[in-house]
Amino acid sequence: MCRWLAYTGSPVVLTAVLYTPVHSLIDQSLHAKLGAETTNGDGFGIGWYDERPTPGVFRSTEPAWNDANLREVASHVASPLFFAHVRAAIGSAVQQTNCHPFRHDRRLWMHNGFIDGYARVKRELAMAVDPALYPQIAGQTDSEILFYLALTFGLETDPVGAVARAVGLVEATGRAHGVAFPFQGTIATSDGASLWAFRYSSEGRTRSMFLTRDIPTLREMYPDREILHAASDDARMVVSEPIGDLPGAWLEVPESTVAVVSRGREELRPFTPTGANTR
Amino acid sequence: MCRWLAYTGSPVVLTAVLYTPVHSLIDQSLHAKLGAETTNGDGFGIGWYDERPTPGVFRSTEPAWNDANLREVASHVASPLFFAHVRAAIGSAVQQTNCHPFRHDRRLWMHNGFIDGYARVKRELAMAVDPALYPQIAGQTDSEILFYLALTFGLETDPVGAVARAVGLVEATGRAHGVAFPFQGTIATSDGASLWAFRYSSEGRTRSMFLTRDIPTLREMYPDREILHAASDDARMVVSEPIGDLPGAWLEVPESTVAVVSRGREELRPFTPTGANTR
Amino acid sequence: MCRWLAYTGSPVVLTAVLYTPVHSLIDQSLHAKLGAETTNGDGFGIGWYDERPTPGVFRSTEPAWNDANLREVASHVASPLFFAHVRAAIGSAVQQTNCHPFRHDRRLWMHNGFIDGYARVKRELAMAVDPALYPQIAGQTDSEILFYLALTFGLETDPVGAVARAVGLVEATGRAHGVAFPFQGTIATSDGASLWAFRYSSEGRTRSMFLTRDIPTLREMYPDREILHAASDDARMVVSEPIGDLPGAWLEVPESTVAVVSRGREELRPFTPTGANTR
Amino acid sequence: MCRWLAYTGSPVVLTAVLYTPVHSLIDQSLHAKLGAETTNGDGFGIGWYDERPTPGVFRSTEPAWNDANLREVASHVASPLFFAHVRAAIGSAVQQTNCHPFRHDRRLWMHNGFIDGYARVKRELAMAVDPALYPQIAGQTDSEILFYLALTFGLETDPVGAVARAVGLVEATGRAHGVAFPFQGTIATSDGASLWAFRYSSEGRTRSMFLTRDIPTLREMYPDREILHAASDDARMVVSEPIGDLPGAWLEVPESTVAVVSRGREELRPFTPTGANTR
Repeated sequence: MCRWLAYTGSPVVLTAVLYTPVHSLIDQSLHAKLGAETTNGDGFGIGWYDERPTPGVFRSTEPAWNDANLREVASHVASPLFFAHVRAAIGSAVQQTNCHPFRHDRRLWMHNGFIDGYARVKRELAMAVDPALYPQIAGQTDSEILFYLALTFGLETDPVGAVARAVGLVEATGRAHGVAFPFQGTIATSDGASLWAFRYSSEGRTRSMFLTRDIPTLREMYPDREILHAASDDARMVVSEPIGDLPGAWLEVPESTVAVVSRGREELRPFTPTGANTR
Repeated sequence: MCRWLAYTGSPVVLTAVLYTPVHSLIDQSLHAKLGAETTNGDGFGIGWYDERPTPGVFRSTEPAWNDANLREVASHVASPLFFAHVRAAIGSAVQQTNCHPFRHDRRLWMHNGFIDGYARVKRELAMAVDPALYPQIAGQTDSEILFYLALTFGLETDPVGAVARAVGLVEATGRAHGVAFPFQGTIATSDGASLWAFRYSSEGRTRSMFLTRDIPTLREMYPDREILHAASDDARMVVSEPIGDLPGAWLEVPESTVAVVSRGREELRPFTPTGANTR
Repeated sequence: MCRWLAYTGSPVVLTAVLYTPVHSLIDQSLHAKLGAETTNGDGFGIGWYDERPTPGVFRSTEPAWNDANLREVASHVASPLFFAHVRAAIGSAVQQTNCHPFRHDRRLWMHNGFIDGYARVKRELAMAVDPALYPQIAGQTDSEILFYLALTFGLETDPVGAVARAVGLVEATGRAHGVAFPFQGTIATSDGASLWAFRYSSEGRTRSMFLTRDIPTLREMYPDREILHAASDDARMVVSEPIGDLPGAWLEVPESTVAVVSRGREELRPFTPTGANTR
Repeated sequence: MCRWLAYTGSPVVLTAVLYTPVHSLIDQSLHAKLGAETTNGDGFGIGWYDERPTPGVFRSTEPAWNDANLREVASHVASPLFFAHVRAAIGSAVQQTNCHPFRHDRRLWMHNGFIDGYARVKRELAMAVDPALYPQIAGQTDSEILFYLALTFGLETDPVGAVARAVGLVEATGRAHGVAFPFQGTIATSDGASLWAFRYSSEGRTRSMFLTRDIPTLREMYPDREILHAASDDARMVVSEPIGDLPGAWLEVPESTVAVVSRGREELRPFTPTGANTR
């Protein structure tokens, strides 16, 4: 159910990451290996940071593998930090407003997973969103509500804490409605400078998530690989599943972990939802 | 802002009503004369009753004037009661789930108008929807929320009362948030047997709405008009603006009125929103 | 590369055939087992005959598995003879005019396969189309050109002969341009009364095609199967791959064969392209 | 019938030209004043040059006025030379491959107009396209065939001569089929360095086309206008209709004229179709 990719480092043209690799995200829209579904054809989206105040977002309901406009935009845009997502819809309409990444001011958000028993908890969760933010919800997905809950709980100032509270609320609300394992998923979010990637599920069996090993180390391991010399020292990617097959290049992020990538350095910390849900 | 049409009578092929007339609804998608906009190209929808338990609905974001599939479906479907709507969007995304008519079980609903200051009142109105119905809201329009409020207040058993309460709640909530004229619009709704059409606005300056004069009278007025002999005795239409120009055929429905059409007979009654908003 | 289905018999609601079966065509759009691709998400189309002079056609670039309008139309239309197709595009754009079935007057046409080396032969084949028909070509697929060649060679009066000449021309032209195996595919075409289904490829390794065994025989084999009693005596289907798994119900049509189904009776004849390509 | 715009000068962000002006091209998609239709909602397209070898192209069938992706891409792309087009379709399908601008290698092409009696001449004109180019035709418009004829006649080396021969062939072919006035239209084409804009019709009553006066002169005329100081000295636009209303800023290009804009300098020359149509 969905596959996503996030890149941070020196600016690269998006096609180099989105289309060129052996098992690119575009390939994963048709032939994912580690996802719940092999096909992720219910829409796609990209979000990219550049010199403008807010990131650009391009989302479409078309399957990614055939979308000419996506290839065009991706080959004419270079960015130091961008998100890409291909969707397999569960339970909500295939429409542009339900495609990831979601954006709020300078913040982007992607999710691979779901809130279980969503119909039962949707209203309560919607009501927990800050009333000032509520009118900005444009779609009907659980992923977008989760984003707005995180924004409500301080995503702009304390991302890890805000996501912990949002997921905590989801779990508490779900359990109160008899849902055994309310939350599933990997989440990526950014402010244009840093990248936060979460891997957590109530059941402890979360969708896959990988982080690339740092480029200097990879160059030592593979001195003849030209692509590693083309990449910048600080280039890092967090992905649902590897886009290439170079042994040792892809480090699986453990369950219940948040990876924070900033200026080429990463930090992995344990991630636990918190109970507090007041603003 | 939007144009709609409702037909009731003996079954007719939809194209006879949607495409053939001088100033058909399809023509109104490009050249409306009485609407807030001449162009209504932000999507369209049709809903039709037949022998199946629930009505069929076909909605698309494509402008109606060029949609080949609409013409195809319309020329192959005959129905004794159907709705059609062309949209000019105000403030919400152009997506299939935001197109009219909306459907719930056997009930269809269309609206031409808006809830003023919607961002300010959206959350409160959403919270007034019956929690059991709330998860079924698929889009993000004021028109759909109004439908779900009416369903909450008993649309299935007392349509006029339910709409009165829904509009009453919209007005009370709007005024509490400083909106001078909260509600604008014409509404059409049906259960497959009868048709209710409302014309009301807080300001008393409502979008246009017309009802056809009964066919037997029109035949007396125009004995040579072939189309009147082809039409069934009980054929009636309620429209945003006339699709033809036969003098005397189109009766303007007054402000603050509900027209109830059932088995070829119509009844016009005064319509006033009511204050009660509890379930 | 594409999957299709054709039904002939007493009228049935399209969903009974398109959605309900174990391995329906909608399921095949996502999980085809016998096709060149498991995913056929580059558009779909249905064509159905009823009392109107020409068949209705509904085609869309959306993947079939998620298209709400397709489900709606399919559940409100009953037909004694209809076509359905899900597309995996090779080499031409994903657009409505490139979706099957194609229609000309009362004739429908579907194809699963391709003309190899199409870029090399496209112009010559286009020039062989009757100049009076040429302007009606709306898309850019090899499948549509093949249809127009068959129309040029008399599809309306001698379907088998016309298809033989069309495929013959494709093979002659291809070979002249150095293409080893110019033609691949199964073809279905109808005039609303009879159904012709062809299975042929230059290489002798053609896409799969099956014909259902007649209903009376199946009832004897499976007296307890309710669905066989619901089906009409003359109900037959020709499909790219079986939509159910009842042993003995699906007869594989041999290579180089045309199946003609008319009034519940089928006739299988050898099919060979012919060399003559003059009109 | 269609409106277009071309910009050349120092790089500007596309929204500054496409969205911001008083009567922007986006506004013209809904409220054109000088076109054959007020609404141009049958798709849009942009093409822009940057450092990459070929220009980017983004085309969609959605009406321009509501397309979120267009606004996104336009606000994140800066270019020294770009094309934009909004379409009102005549006689061919609304599909992405029928939207302008068309692209071939580094060349872009837009057209506002039509080839009259196209159905009668389409086949002959298609046959006059260089066989090596023919397979690359992706749509079915007269505008695209015209482009391929111009490419056939040497658009890459002698643009004015090539267009003269292409239009000449269209006129000769049309007249041979009894069409009184075969060609109508304004054409814009570029190689990324220069811009050629043609205004010609067989009848001598051509769609409107304007060229901006040079910026230094406009600054003298309007020393207080801030936008003129923001614009580069060499900024020029050629448009179907003015996007602003500053008196004296918009020079109407005469009938039967080609305007060549290169490095901020323009040259207007008489344009006449030529009879020679051999390659």
